[in-house]
Amino acid sequence: MGTGFFGTIEKIPFKGADSTDPLSYRFYDPDEVVMGKRMEDHLRFAVAYWHSFAWEGGDPFGGRTFDRPWYDGEMDKAKLKADVAFEMFKILGAPYYCFHDADVRPEGRTFAESRKNLEEIVDYFARKQEETGVKLLWGTANLFSNRRFMSGASTNPDPDVFAYSAATIKSCMDATMKLGGENYVLWGGREGYETLLNTDMSREFDQMARMLHMVVDYKHKIGFKGAILVEPKPQEPTKHQYDFDVATVYGFLRKYGLENEVKMNIEQGHAILAGHTFEHELALASTLGIFGSIDMNRNDYQSGWDTDQFPNNVPEMALAYYQVLKAGGFTTGGTNFDAKLRRQSIDPEDLLIAHIGGMDCCARGLKAAARMVEDGALQKPLDERYAGWAKPEAQKMLKGEYSLDQIAEKVERDNINPEPRSGRQEYLENIVNRYV
Amino acid sequence: MGTGFFGTIEKIPFKGADSTDPLSYRFYDPDEVVMGKRMEDHLRFAVAYWHSFAWEGGDPFGGRTFDRPWYDGEMDKAKLKADVAFEMFKILGAPYYCFHDADVRPEGRTFAESRKNLEEIVDYFARKQEETGVKLLWGTANLFSNRRFMSGASTNPDPDVFAYSAATIKSCMDATMKLGGENYVLWGGREGYETLLNTDMSREFDQMARMLHMVVDYKHKIGFKGAILVEPKPQEPTKHQYDFDVATVYGFLRKYGLENEVKMNIEQGHAILAGHTFEHELALASTLGIFGSIDMNRNDYQSGWDTDQFPNNVPEMALAYYQVLKAGGFTTGGTNFDAKLRRQSIDPEDLLIAHIGGMDCCARGLKAAARMVEDGALQKPLDERYAGWAKPEAQKMLKGEYSLDQIAEKVERDNINPEPRSGRQEYLENIVNRYV
Amino acid sequence: MGTGFFGTIEKIPFKGADSTDPLSYRFYDPDEVVMGKRMEDHLRFAVAYWHSFAWEGGDPFGGRTFDRPWYDGEMDKAKLKADVAFEMFKILGAPYYCFHDADVRPEGRTFAESRKNLEEIVDYFARKQEETGVKLLWGTANLFSNRRFMSGASTNPDPDVFAYSAATIKSCMDATMKLGGENYVLWGGREGYETLLNTDMSREFDQMARMLHMVVDYKHKIGFKGAILVEPKPQEPTKHQYDFDVATVYGFLRKYGLENEVKMNIEQGHAILAGHTFEHELALASTLGIFGSIDMNRNDYQSGWDTDQFPNNVPEMALAYYQVLKAGGFTTGGTNFDAKLRRQSIDPEDLLIAHIGGMDCCARGLKAAARMVEDGALQKPLDERYAGWAKPEAQKMLKGEYSLDQIAEKVERDNINPEPRSGRQEYLENIVNRYV
Amino acid sequence: MGTGFFGTIEKIPFKGADSTDPLSYRFYDPDEVVMGKRMEDHLRFAVAYWHSFAWEGGDPFGGRTFDRPWYDGEMDKAKLKADVAFEMFKILGAPYYCFHDADVRPEGRTFAESRKNLEEIVDYFARKQEETGVKLLWGTANLFSNRRFMSGASTNPDPDVFAYSAATIKSCMDATMKLGGENYVLWGGREGYETLLNTDMSREFDQMARMLHMVVDYKHKIGFKGAILVEPKPQEPTKHQYDFDVATVYGFLRKYGLENEVKMNIEQGHAILAGHTFEHELALASTLGIFGSIDMNRNDYQSGWDTDQFPNNVPEMALAYYQVLKAGGFTTGGTNFDAKLRRQSIDPEDLLIAHIGGMDCCARGLKAAARMVEDGALQKPLDERYAGWAKPEAQKMLKGEYSLDQIAEKVERDNINPEPRSGRQEYLENIVNRYV
Ligand SMILES: [Co+2]
Ligand SMILES: [Co+2]
Ligand SMILES: [Co+2]
Ligand SMILES: [Co+2]
Ligand SMILES: [Co+2]
Ligand SMILES: [Co+2]
Ligand SMILES: [Co+2]
Ligand SMILES: [Co+2]
Repeated sequence: MGTGFFGTIEKIPFKGADSTDPLSYRFYDPDEVVMGKRMEDHLRFAVAYWHSFAWEGGDPFGGRTFDRPWYDGEMDKAKLKADVAFEMFKILGAPYYCFHDADVRPEGRTFAESRKNLEEIVDYFARKQEETGVKLLWGTANLFSNRRFMSGASTNPDPDVFAYSAATIKSCMDATMKLGGENYVLWGGREGYETLLNTDMSREFDQMARMLHMVVDYKHKIGFKGAILVEPKPQEPTKHQYDFDVATVYGFLRKYGLENEVKMNIEQGHAILAGHTFEHELALASTLGIFGSIDMNRNDYQSGWDTDQFPNNVPEMALAYYQVLKAGGFTTGGTNFDAKLRRQSIDPEDLLIAHIGGMDCCARGLKAAARMVEDGALQKPLDERYAGWAKPEAQKMLKGEYSLDQIAEKVERDNINPEPRSGRQEYLENIVNRYV
Repeated sequence: MGTGFFGTIEKIPFKGADSTDPLSYRFYDPDEVVMGKRMEDHLRFAVAYWHSFAWEGGDPFGGRTFDRPWYDGEMDKAKLKADVAFEMFKILGAPYYCFHDADVRPEGRTFAESRKNLEEIVDYFARKQEETGVKLLWGTANLFSNRRFMSGASTNPDPDVFAYSAATIKSCMDATMKLGGENYVLWGGREGYETLLNTDMSREFDQMARMLHMVVDYKHKIGFKGAILVEPKPQEPTKHQYDFDVATVYGFLRKYGLENEVKMNIEQGHAILAGHTFEHELALASTLGIFGSIDMNRNDYQSGWDTDQFPNNVPEMALAYYQVLKAGGFTTGGTNFDAKLRRQSIDPEDLLIAHIGGMDCCARGLKAAARMVEDGALQKPLDERYAGWAKPEAQKMLKGEYSLDQIAEKVERDNINPEPRSGRQEYLENIVNRYV
Repeated sequence: MGTGFFGTIEKIPFKGADSTDPLSYRFYDPDEVVMGKRMEDHLRFAVAYWHSFAWEGGDPFGGRTFDRPWYDGEMDKAKLKADVAFEMFKILGAPYYCFHDADVRPEGRTFAESRKNLEEIVDYFARKQEETGVKLLWGTANLFSNRRFMSGASTNPDPDVFAYSAATIKSCMDATMKLGGENYVLWGGREGYETLLNTDMSREFDQMARMLHMVVDYKHKIGFKGAILVEPKPQEPTKHQYDFDVATVYGFLRKYGLENEVKMNIEQGHAILAGHTFEHELALASTLGIFGSIDMNRNDYQSGWDTDQFPNNVPEMALAYYQVLKAGGFTTGGTNFDAKLRRQSIDPEDLLIAHIGGMDCCARGLKAAARMVEDGALQKPLDERYAGWAKPEAQKMLKGEYSLDQIAEKVERDNINPEPRSGRQEYLENIVNRYV
Repeated sequence: MGTGFFGTIEKIPFKGADSTDPLSYRFYDPDEVVMGKRMEDHLRFAVAYWHSFAWEGGDPFGGRTFDRPWYDGEMDKAKLKADVAFEMFKILGAPYYCFHDADVRPEGRTFAESRKNLEEIVDYFARKQEETGVKLLWGTANLFSNRRFMSGASTNPDPDVFAYSAATIKSCMDATMKLGGENYVLWGGREGYETLLNTDMSREFDQMARMLHMVVDYKHKIGFKGAILVEPKPQEPTKHQYDFDVATVYGFLRKYGLENEVKMNIEQGHAILAGHTFEHELALASTLGIFGSIDMNRNDYQSGWDTDQFPNNVPEMALAYYQVLKAGGFTTGGTNFDAKLRRQSIDPEDLLIAHIGGMDCCARGLKAAARMVEDGALQKPLDERYAGWAKPEAQKMLKGEYSLDQIAEKVERDNINPEPRSGRQEYLENIVNRYV
């Protein structure tokens, strides 16, 4: 017995590239094998509970545009919301979902009440997961919406907020563990500042590191096998967010000895806001050994805030999955759509169509990326470009067997005067366009 | 016997705030004591040789606008340029200058010839320094203008370019040492990429780190007592520069074990391009223990490239010097004007006027900052804001004496439910406006 | 009998530049005469009802942080809100305020009910105005918050929304007229698009022009003597807002023959978002003959959205008022603070302190600008720069007495070969710094 | 007898989508008929002389990287350059080219000499055109590179520069006329300002309008049948360029009565810099009746300056050509590549490969756009969305048959209370992805 929210729509079928049915997949065939692995196992799609079921369509200049039967209620509405959510996961064939505590349970009057509410809904989710086979990609704590967090969670000037945040994280880690979640994510939406005038960055770094250490310790204590992921974002809602981008978080992890315990959940939109491409952040995380998972939602290049749109540009997405494949693909991570409908897309069907479009583009992108990898289309020219470094003298120089003055002497002795060689950017861009 | 380039203009006098003489200082009185130190010793002004004497007024859409008698020549013109430069340092009363090799010597046909040219001009500079008392704040190598560096210097796919760069750096470190330079700076203008398609970031990081290690080793070998400084910039000329911002460089230093050997030269314009305020980068460098020196030239907020303008907004500059003072002030570092005239400012007098304006604004900013420090105007409210963390229970939590679950238990036991307190941003902004 | 909201705070006194009392003015002395006019009559300060009394401290990632006794209520709460608002106007000595319908009255279940609610509160305001002497600078309609406007007001694809918008504007124009408002403002927050894919720009321009024509006609019909003002903004909440900037609105007015009926309300923050300086938009509006009024709230240069902060950078503000003075000063317009507290500034006192700081900075800016005007500090060099155009031959050329080929002939005949002259930007910037 | 610059490469063949030959077209088959017209006649490709043959690979931090045999010379080198250029047009099968005077002729010591040089090279071009069948899409004058234009061309404070600019334009219009050019373009690279402090915007507008009037008059006088096109750009090299974007230029044309004489040459990269999408500028120009031609070179979204890259994102390009087709396609206009190689792409082959990639992407984009048009894929949902406006009452309202108060009365009488309808953005985006 369904809720009827999506009418009579049943499981979205794969119909192939020529399909014009908006409620079909044209490229996402979960069982198709790509580079020796089923597409479903490559992509590991997850639906974000918050945007699809908790967000009401508001923006800074206007309120709720959606009209959902589960709004404005307590536990019964929370369960109706869960019913619809799991119906949607099944209709889409999405193997995973993700959630914050605040998305799924009513806020209590006290922390204890909030925690109990969460536990009740977690039990409800556990039954749903069993019924549907849908799994939890990651859980997380909302430490940014309630006014108590307005000046930060772990970085709050008030140690009571730090404590409240710690307790909240614990309850969310317990929930994630119980639901078999494969990762636990931290996004520090309020860990940053509005003005340096009222901020002691040094203290706040120590506070944030303390919290992260406690999270790692608790993970080990309870035997949670998933990854701890931090999601960088440069700003918004804050003027400056401490977890600015992959490079910044890496430096922080190094400073506090956490670089082997924490990985990255990288979002396209946040990469853009930080002045990077998505593939840059992915390549960097891989280079630094901290690649974890992705939020595959695009940002409007023109808007200065995070628009969290469903992805739709296949050439860009192919470059992202190319980096994912080069990093070895996902292990605990996956492809989460941290994406929301445009606030004018108010029909239930819009929710399905948006995810279908996003999943199909990911499938196209992945397949293009896989073919580039298999053909060595980009790798071969790359190896060629750096071939000079394979020579023994170059390797010695790289390994530190020469000092600055020894090299200088050699430059003069051999009259080294290097001629530049073409970077061939347009050639390589044309190659990519053969695959997308 | 002067060159006559600046006509009859002699040393710029301090005439006080009411002066309307464009060739006088209104605020910069080198001998005025601020917080127990002469202003000159606080600010440690340096003139950048490249912008003031080597740059010809070109931009991407037009060529040379300036018309200087030392253009288009060889060693004799290089010496004339030096004569004018040292005349200007004296007229301004600027205690320091900074240079790249390429600013000061003609390019040779071979590396050896370039090196010899540099050595000849270094000898000439040494005599000029002695005559004038002007000192070298820092030297640096230009590893970005010549086409051989188009694909990077230390990060070039061609190891010969790496070697050529190493040799160049050595010659510049030698020059800096010989001239008594107080720092040696590295700005990796081409260390980055135009497209990831032809870039192996992982290799290039290792190459860049190798070079930096060699620089540090050579510094110790020759007994150079100054600081090695890296100047971050996020992009331009590259699409992505590896030394993106302070946080990024810090992570890099940590990864390669260089965090105790290298400090930051922070430029306002580069901070802006990276999505930060100048004071953010200063505060962060101080927090991370890697604050070194500043390039006090502003960027136009509207332009998407580095405009390197002379600074002129005193309220912003006061906040920058406030961070410098909080970091303990400069030790080896100083205030370099990495600033160029607008290309329409073609008169010799414009060079003086631009520096006078910049120096005067720095003086105003410093004095305002010093009064804020002395009054505790911002520090007192800050301490008050974090006062809760001084309590023993909070300190225990911060020091790691409680685990996540212990804190969670306490939150429930004590029913902790924190009330937010005002961040008072506008109040603090009004306080700053009392000083500027 | 006051509401007690601001405790015992009474009228904010002017205490002079040395005052350290946060509840005093240091520069704003309403009666001080500047360029022959009282400062109050120059600046014509207005408080924005929406930000100060209706906005609850929410942002895209968090809800209400403020805790005001008038929240969550109907007409009684609306009147309490008005009581506090007028108390604040008096405490500040602000001569004007501004409001949207939605700020001041409860939303009704029907349009008629909303209109009646507005009329009731307008009567209440009328009495308050009489008691306090506070006046209405401008009224406006909120055609963006309610979900009915999600796809535009006048530009909605549904003509019923156009009609509803027209009716709403009429009621707000009536209210403004009744309260003696000196202007009526239109800000088209939803007049734009999220995607061109569902947008017919051509139709929507015609709809928007029709509405504006009706507004102008109705103004004349009811004998409203104030100005009709459009407030440009480039984006946010929309991806593209049709009233992008002053230049764009000007073209629109021209296209539809409205350029003599409509003027501009220019906001600093919106200028920044459109890629301009505030003074650019002011100078342009003045040049085009459509300068009206200002929203003197700054935008954070780093944030990509409209932060609507209280202004605090005096040098920038002086340049803005310099343009206002050059445009002849305000006639019906004034200085509105379309500014909101930071959401962490939750104390009633913060409301006062923010306005005091803003008003004081405006006063400083105005006084600096007035002195620049009086001294001809910038005008003299400007006239000198264009002096060549005063010559008869140049004037003939400008007036169209020569054709392209006649001028070409003359260039060859006289071998015209112009030498560039210094633009003296740094000199002029130093001059400005003598005044701020 | 060729120059040998491109070695043995001959005319680039069309080989179909499966071709892996980098020197073949995969999609651009000039004779393929799309919507009843040959692709060549739709796309009307032009090569930009300046980027491909005059630009030397410099950027603000480095000089020439290319090494071309025609550099550093006088008329003989200019002719060699022309030989290579026309060879490339033939190899590519590009039907058009575009040039500035400064790209093609040596600068003379006087205006007369420069003019004569231009005339000599124009004769040379005329013969080349005849031999090859290649045509001139548009000519233009370079009024920005020489230092005489540093403070503007028509907007210069010195009337002699205005005169010099007029003479230059005349010579370029004559050249364009003689070579059968189909348009004449004005890009006002220096018509703007670096600082308002030294700028009288009002005067400069009048100067700019005078020049444009003279251009239009001269066009009619000489019987030039092509279109006069203005190319907007918001900034760079200036801080503010007067021809900011399409909307701005439109207002300017209206102000000076030129809106029926001048059309737009719209560049993707400039649209991006102005905060718009390319399709926005195209749709707007079409709506305003001033669409002319396009510069189909993309900008890097991350870089804050104009990168003028060859286009490579087919989904974006399809949306651009969709607007072109909706505007009726090109008449005098065409698809110019105002695109330059990356400065590391130093091989002659790179020049060909970059153009091939760009042309192929345009062909793909055009074909996708054509199918969207033919299917009414986007038009049908659009018509449906605005269907309400087709009703007689709505049309009356739009035509101005009701006043504001009449509509208000009707809203109350009929209790109009519109319900929002889905904007279906994701649905429409998925439709587009069926075509690209
Ligand atoms: Co996001
Ligand atoms: Co995310
Ligand atoms: Co710089
Ligand atoms: Co610098
Ligand atoms: Co605003
Ligand atoms: Co406003
Ligand atoms: Co361009
Ligand atoms: Co162009």
